[in-house]
Amino acid sequence: MTHDDALAHLDAHYPSMPPVRALQLAIESFDGERLRLSAPLAANVNDKGCAFGGSLASLMTLACWGRVWLELDAAGLDCDIYVADSRIRYLAPLYDDLHAQAAPAPDARWDEFVAAIRAKGRGRIEMAARIDLPDGRPATTFDARFAAILRPAG
Amino acid sequence: MTHDDALAHLDAHYPSMPPVRALQLAIESFDGERLRLSAPLAANVNDKGCAFGGSLASLMTLACWGRVWLELDAAGLDCDIYVADSRIRYLAPLYDDLHAQAAPAPDARWDEFVAAIRAKGRGRIEMAARIDLPDGRPATTFDARFAAILRPAG
Repeated sequence: MTHDDALAHLDAHYPSMPPVRALQLAIESFDGERLRLSAPLAANVNDKGCAFGGSLASLMTLACWGRVWLELDAAGLDCDIYVADSRIRYLAPLYDDLHAQAAPAPDARWDEFVAAIRAKGRGRIEMAARIDLPDGRPATTFDARFAAILRPAG
Repeated sequence: MTHDDALAHLDAHYPSMPPVRALQLAIESFDGERLRLSAPLAANVNDKGCAFGGSLASLMTLACWGRVWLELDAAGLDCDIYVADSRIRYLAPLYDDLHAQAAPAPDARWDEFVAAIRAKGRGRIEMAARIDLPDGRPATTFDARFAAILRPAG
């Protein structure tokens, strides 16, 4: 797929999942490295008037998941992609819309991930995401490992 | 509040949050130690037909949050309760409804948590939750720290 086709595919894919539709997420941008998603506070607000922890977790998970999908699509690989584990730090309450950005962790290498999938049908990669406050300080940070398993050709 | 009143309050409180309403969660039981919540797979399914990672994270977060709230309510403490950090392991895909259970971590002590809030207006406690497969093996495990801050009397 071309870059634009891949983003359009992802944009249609996300809301096909009922819990993702509830988040009302939107793709903001993909610059070839970072994927950015957003979601309105109104759909994701908790009892304290700030963003619900579960929504923050979901949006960062989905941003990383989508970033992995874009990389594998660009490599021509059709995989099921799973989150294997995640660590989230909630650093400050967010009283604004949610803007998540996702990219590989500093030590992660796309080429090794893709090579593992080509060689063994599966691979793992460390991803990192964050959601910032309007002033640029982090509201939440997210570190996770994702697994991809090649789908049988069909 | 009595035990029943507290559960009724929690039952009304959860769906007051839009992202929680989307999960369609229900309180299953509270035996004085473990709080159990459930949510239907249909509202929480991903593109692979199994439970969405973000929904699993949300349900375990809410189970722990509710368990903390019940303990503080029983102690007569009105607090804002926040998740501070969490670690989730996704061990096996769940192709069934979600059933979460939450309790303090093995080393956590309610009495120390309550005493800290009484003395300093705030406290932290380690909580643990899990969602099992129908055969009893864990689908996901969740370890998190929660913070409670006493609300100004008013």
